[in-house]
Amino acid sequence: MELIQRMLAGDKRACAKLITAVENDPEEAEKIIRQIHNKTGHAHVIGITGPPGAGKSTLTDKLVKALVNEGKRVGIIAVDPTSPYSGGSILGDRIRMQDLALNPNVFIRSMGTRGYLGGLSKYTKNALKILDAAGYDYIVIETVGVGQSEVDIVKIADTILMVMVPGLGDDIQSIKAGIMEIGDIFVINKSDLFGADRTATEVNMMLDLSMDMDRRPPVVKVVAVKNEGIDLLLEEIKKHMEYLRESGKLVERRKNNLKIEIVELIETELRKIVISHTDEDNRLDGEATEILNKEKNIYEVRDEFLKAIKKDN
Amino acid sequence: MELIQRMLAGDKRACAKLITAVENDPEEAEKIIRQIHNKTGHAHVIGITGPPGAGKSTLTDKLVKALVNEGKRVGIIAVDPTSPYSGGSILGDRIRMQDLALNPNVFIRSMGTRGYLGGLSKYTKNALKILDAAGYDYIVIETVGVGQSEVDIVKIADTILMVMVPGLGDDIQSIKAGIMEIGDIFVINKSDLFGADRTATEVNMMLDLSMDMDRRPPVVKVVAVKNEGIDLLLEEIKKHMEYLRESGKLVERRKNNLKIEIVELIETELRKIVISHTDEDNRLDGEATEILNKEKNIYEVRDEFLKAIKKDN
Repeated sequence: MELIQRMLAGDKRACAKLITAVENDPEEAEKIIRQIHNKTGHAHVIGITGPPGAGKSTLTDKLVKALVNEGKRVGIIAVDPTSPYSGGSILGDRIRMQDLALNPNVFIRSMGTRGYLGGLSKYTKNALKILDAAGYDYIVIETVGVGQSEVDIVKIADTILMVMVPGLGDDIQSIKAGIMEIGDIFVINKSDLFGADRTATEVNMMLDLSMDMDRRPPVVKVVAVKNEGIDLLLEEIKKHMEYLRESGKLVERRKNNLKIEIVELIETELRKIVISHTDEDNRLDGEATEILNKEKNIYEVRDEFLKAIKKDN
Repeated sequence: MELIQRMLAGDKRACAKLITAVENDPEEAEKIIRQIHNKTGHAHVIGITGPPGAGKSTLTDKLVKALVNEGKRVGIIAVDPTSPYSGGSILGDRIRMQDLALNPNVFIRSMGTRGYLGGLSKYTKNALKILDAAGYDYIVIETVGVGQSEVDIVKIADTILMVMVPGLGDDIQSIKAGIMEIGDIFVINKSDLFGADRTATEVNMMLDLSMDMDRRPPVVKVVAVKNEGIDLLLEEIKKHMEYLRESGKLVERRKNNLKIEIVELIETELRKIVISHTDEDNRLDGEATEILNKEKNIYEVRDEFLKAIKKDN
């Protein structure tokens, strides 16, 4: 495929076209991913998550610029509806985005959060594979960490940054409590604001209480808008990758993500089979009517479908 | 089954035990639901959803008392982590709960939101069937409407109340925007507070803008703590049921919910088959390693599993 050759040679437009192809056509996606598989596995994937207003976009911006200054090539996947990269933010953010997007060593892809119908993590995984094959040294996935689906997306990263800010209500902190455990590095952004020390102390206390960790995540204070603390954060990100490699956890982590992905792919195929059976001759509708009329119960209907599915496959 | 006989005869303890059995043991659940199937379909199911702090528990309390005063039997399923019915609230709420729980015509079941691992809606559906078979005239499902999973739960109701309050931040209103469309009746609670008229106006405007509805949901102002507006709300709930029956939408709605449930049940069975294959001899782990080592790609592994699954079934 010519597009793949061009993408592998560093053509950003080819890269963008491949991601679009992968988003729009599952069969095309499979064809493309099969071909690029051997080129993947080299990028360091950084996940950035946290509540709206934590300044994740600004942090992404500064982090990416620091990496570019080191001569690295960086891909960005923004699945954050509040991110300027995925549209709909203020003018200043848009200008900043343009600034990065024009850099030949930076590729930006925004994934809208609508229209993927629960399958957003699948699309993110495929886009990630293409950027990985395209030779980007780092790939940043930016998402809003408020729900399970966002957590699912960011979990494919090697290094997960959990971005907090001083002064968020207790409500948001408690929503976050359940997802705190996925953070590899805790970033207190806007740490020049009143309350930053208290937030840092609270996060540190919480981390000290979690005794089952074999690595204690660092807490890094930054002021992204002023570019303060970014170098230190970058150092911690690199240290984390070293730790992952040396401890064997990188392979373990990627393997676990792969296992989840394999099962998802198997289930997707089985779901297609289920739908082809239930949709045939409007059969599901007829069966539901029979259940409502007490002619059958729901388990009888399930078993009939299962029998038919097994017979045909 | 003796428990089922006792439950059908109106024994609340038997009812509670059956719901517990259904929660703990999927095989037992299937056995029980198969047996009670013919007794279901009579209850009017009311779903109550809305953000934390909207006063859903107080509203449930008053609504249930009004129904009991009419001589009705009412079941309550609380899947709201902030609800006093599912534990963890202030003393006053607990006393109120006791008050209702002791009424022989009221059955209260709280479903914790932990430990169900994404399958909460399945348990809610089964508990609902048991209460329905037990002859409760009304079944109230109370849940916090902030995420997709809560919406999935409340969608099994015949009549969905969307509870709002004046003065919630724009943030919460925007989270709710996507789920507004499921409301059959909009309840402005705490409508003696400043801003109630504005909230009602906003909701009305939003409803006027939705042109594709064949029924325009009413907006009802109540002050649940003062028992104000509850009778009017009850009237609207009954009117909605009348509308559902006369328009044929009750059958349509229940049939659609059944179709979703059938597909879920089929997929659960297929998932069991997938897991038995992937877990066998730690096969999934070995395959993931081969993918990481570029010996295979993920689609080849998927296809091998699919082939094995089809061969064995």
